[in-house]
Formats: sequence, C-alpha cells, structure tokens
Amino acid sequence: MTSPNLVVVGSVAYDSIETDAQAQKDVLGGSATYFSLASRVLAPTGIVAVIGDDFKAEHKSLLANRGVDLAGLETAPGETFRWGGRYDSELKDRETLFTLLNVFADFSPKMPAGYRNAPYVFLANFDPELQLEVLNQCTGPRFVACDTMNFWIQGKLEPLLQLLPRIDALFLNDTEAYELTGQRNLLLAARWIQDHGTPIAVIKKGEHGAVIITRDDIVVVPAFLLPDVSDPTGAGDSFAGGMVGALARLDDTSPDALRLAAAVGTITASYCVQEFGPGRLASLDLAAIQERLATYWDRIHTPAKEL
Amino acid sequence: MTSPNLVVVGSVAYDSIETDAQAQKDVLGGSATYFSLASRVLAPTGIVAVIGDDFKAEHKSLLANRGVDLAGLETAPGETFRWGGRYDSELKDRETLFTLLNVFADFSPKMPAGYRNAPYVFLANFDPELQLEVLNQCTGPRFVACDTMNFWIQGKLEPLLQLLPRIDALFLNDTEAYELTGQRNLLLAARWIQDHGTPIAVIKKGEHGAVIITRDDIVVVPAFLLPDVSDPTGAGDSFAGGMVGALARLDDTSPDALRLAAAVGTITASYCVQEFGPGRLASLDLAAIQERLATYWDRIHTPAKEL
Repeated sequence: MTSPNLVVVGSVAYDSIETDAQAQKDVLGGSATYFSLASRVLAPTGIVAVIGDDFKAEHKSLLANRGVDLAGLETAPGETFRWGGRYDSELKDRETLFTLLNVFADFSPKMPAGYRNAPYVFLANFDPELQLEVLNQCTGPRFVACDTMNFWIQGKLEPLLQLLPRIDALFLNDTEAYELTGQRNLLLAARWIQDHGTPIAVIKKGEHGAVIITRDDIVVVPAFLLPDVSDPTGAGDSFAGGMVGALARLDDTSPDALRLAAAVGTITASYCVQEFGPGRLASLDLAAIQERLATYWDRIHTPAKEL
Repeated sequence: MTSPNLVVVGSVAYDSIETDAQAQKDVLGGSATYFSLASRVLAPTGIVAVIGDDFKAEHKSLLANRGVDLAGLETAPGETFRWGGRYDSELKDRETLFTLLNVFADFSPKMPAGYRNAPYVFLANFDPELQLEVLNQCTGPRFVACDTMNFWIQGKLEPLLQLLPRIDALFLNDTEAYELTGQRNLLLAARWIQDHGTPIAVIKKGEHGAVIITRDDIVVVPAFLLPDVSDPTGAGDSFAGGMVGALARLDDTSPDALRLAAAVGTITASYCVQEFGPGRLASLDLAAIQERLATYWDRIHTPAKEL
C-alpha cells in the first residue's frame, strides 16, 4: 500500500474550453488533476476523486505515469463531471457555459487506509460539509489547506466556518475573500480569517499573483509575466499544487518555507497557463521549476543600490 | 535663478473627491502637485503649470514650503482647473463627475530659463502636442519620462507616436497599454512601445503595482499592501514622482537604479493613498520612505531556503 506524502481531494473532470484562439472539448481537467500534476513534481501525491465509467484509460495512465497515486480514485457508474467555459479576449474573465456534475453529484470522498495519515492534505474547492468529512477521516495531518468559492460562501457558510479552525491555510481569490469576510481590504480580510481560526490566508489575484498573510508575515508573490498565455484553466489549482507540494517536499511550514513555496506555486501556475489544458504540467520537471524560479527571483530581487 | 534637478510639467487643480467614507470639495490636486510633493523629498523639483487667479495663497505656500520651485507656475485670469470624481466602494474604479478645464484649456507650457537644462523631466498626462513643445524647449535632458491616457491615444495618436522616439520612459496603465499597442499582453505591449522608440515601458496596474520593462530587464513591483486606503487620487502621479525623483537623486538610470526607483515610487504612492488629498505627501520625508522601503523588501525578499 502506497502512502503518499500529500493527498489532494477534489474533482477529476472533462472540460470544454473556448478562447478566442481555440476551442477544445473533453480536455482532462478538474481541481485534483491540475493540483496533482503540479505537486507530483515536488512530493509523492495521491488523489481522492470520482470518475465515471466513460473516463478514458489513457487519462488514468497519464496521471499514473507521472507518479500520481490513484488508490483514492473511485469509478462510479455514469459520466465523469463535465464543465464548459469561455474566456474573454484578454483571458481574464470567464463565463461558465455548462456544469454537468454527473458522478460528482454523489461524491462521498473516502480516504484509502494508506492516505489517512498523510502529513499534507489539500481539500480542493467542493462542499465544505464533505471537506469536514474528509478531515474526520484524517489522523492528525501536519498541514491542511483548503480552497473554497463564492458558491459555498453563499450556500454553506455554517460548515465553512466550522472548517476554518481545523485547517492551516485557506485559499481563495480576492473577491471571495471580500465576500466571506465583509471586508474591502486584503489585510483586514486576512485578519478576519485568522480571527475565525485559520492562521494562513492565501489570497489569489489571478494574473496579478497572490498574497500570503499570516499573523506575523506578509508574503507578496506577483505573477510570472509571460508573453504567451493560452488557457488560464487550472491556474489556481496548479498554484496550490506547487505551493503545498513545495511545503510537503521541504516538510517545513516556517515563514521562509511559505515564501519559497508561494513562489514555486507561482511558477507551476505560470507553466500551466502556457498550454491548453494540463499538457505542460504533465511534462513538467523539477529542473524547469528551478530554472524559472531563478528568473522569478531576478525580476523581484532587492537591488544592491541604496537611496 | 533656481535650477531644479527635476522638472514636472502638468496640472495644478482643485479636486472634488467622493468616497463611501467622505467627500471633500476643492482639495489641492493635479498631476504636477502629486508628482512634485513626492519627488521633492528626493530631488530639487520645479513645476510648470497654470493656475487661475482664484488659487489660494496657502496652497502656493504649501508647495513652496516643501521646497517645490514655483518659477514655472503661471497665473492666468480665470478659474483653476477643477475635476470631480466619485470612487466605488472598493476604491478601485472611479467615475468622473465633472471636468472644468478653465485656465488649463489654454495651457501653453513655458519652461523658465533655469529649467531648460534640467537633466530629469516628467511630462505628466496632457496633450501630446504640448508635450512635444515642452521637449523642444529643453536642452538635452538626460532622462525624459512621459505619462499619457486613453483620451490622447484615441484623439492625438500622431503626436503621441512622434513623442515616443524622443523620450526614455512611457508611463501608462495596463488598459491604456493594450489600447495604444493593440496587444493583449504586457510583455508584447512593452515590445511594441520599444519598437516605436521608447526604451522603458512603465506599466501601472493600480492596486496591483507596476511592471517596468526594458529590452533586457523585467522589474515587477507589487503594490505595498495597506490596511487603510482613503483616497486613490494621485496614486499614479505620486508613483511617478517617487520613481523619477529617485532616479534624479541617484543620477543613475542603470537597471539597478530603475529597480530601486520603481520601489520608491511604490512607497510614495502607498503614502499618498492613505490620506484624503495630498496631505500625507506634504508631510513625507526621506526617513519615512526608507522605513517603508525596508518593510517592502522584506515582503518580497528571496528566501534563503532552496527547493
């Protein structure tokens, strides 16, 4: 029985994605897919998710061949979760064209025995009630991070608030942070999240990067500017995969480790968006992360000069 | 005759500003005001602008007492330029309520004799034809930066394109960069600007900071996160004032100087937005810039840790 160091619980899906430049149907997608294809470069990763009986063997192989542990990937009768979306011409905003939950509608995540004592756990964006159920199956993880979205803030606030004291880091975007906290300022929103029990607020700002705020530290990670962005799908999950993957690799959640991990997440997300779907993540290796990380530090480094 | 090291040509105005928290009429404003109140902390600054005969003596004193040279501040019969605007509840977007050009409508900038050989020149956002006329009055400045906006991109593209080969840095925001260049990507937009003759593209992203792109370097300066933002008016001009002021102070436009100067601009802009109007800039000193700069480098520093 394998015992991955890092477990992600989330979705495996088929996405139909449209941009001005191209459109593709049934692209391998889902939060657990993007997360694990980024994190597996950094730490042994297992996924807990559900697929339908239409899920292609080649996509299982794609994940397995990259070392993603599939012991927690359950197959249910019916079709795999499908999502369709269209991006605007600047690849910033997107419109959801359809969401067919299919087998994901009855998703009841079960941690395999070998996953329950995984030290690092990521609960991707799904129902906070189920996120709580996953936590109840874990035996004292060292670090739990959780993603959420407006839909749950509006519809499942109570279980979400129950979750906050039980996790170490909350991932959400800036508008979601404002909605959850009623604040209009990132620092005040982060204080609210901390006051409700989660010590680390990871606030994503899309093309502008992210901010990680703890009680004692503010880490600002601007995005890695690229000349070629093809498809933003999975950017947030591959950011989380890189970041939590780096923490698991370092087995360290100190301020310096968080700072390095956030930069690694920025880099994995930057690779993700350069190709349509998760293709670039599937071919990613540690050397590519290290190389771009060096360029990244160069772009934000403190100059030797003084005023 | 004074000979300031840095000359800003732009507007001095009275602004009427509304936010959810407060509203004030006839607040001292204008691009040259915000720029010079930031830059004078760093380098002797003179302004070229026009005011009406209603302009208050106390506001002239405010500028003069901070060491801003007013030899180029012309008084014309009539009223001072007035602008009114209202910010949304997140202090991001603003709606212009009125623009009364008044004496600014006939602004014909004249560089006083002592200003013509100033090594550093900033042409704030006004008619590109007049920006060209100012340049024709200068005798070989070392560094010229220029701001512009959608209004001139749409209405005065020809003189703006004539200006580009004659300046060192173009300041504009991301949507303006897209509009000017027809590109949808900051790196490609910067290449377009360079291909049209300006070596340094300074692309402002509001609350997200700025990116400075040269042929050889990409400098990313995220904004300095604050718990208390009162009024974004003047943020862009005080960023430019801090940045060009720092270059003038260092008398250096090397990559390291540009990087430091961009960070200084981020800091002066962060002080600017904390108070309504230009009040905080008026009380700013070098020690306050240095102090916040140290915190800023801490927030974006490269960790000692490696993957």
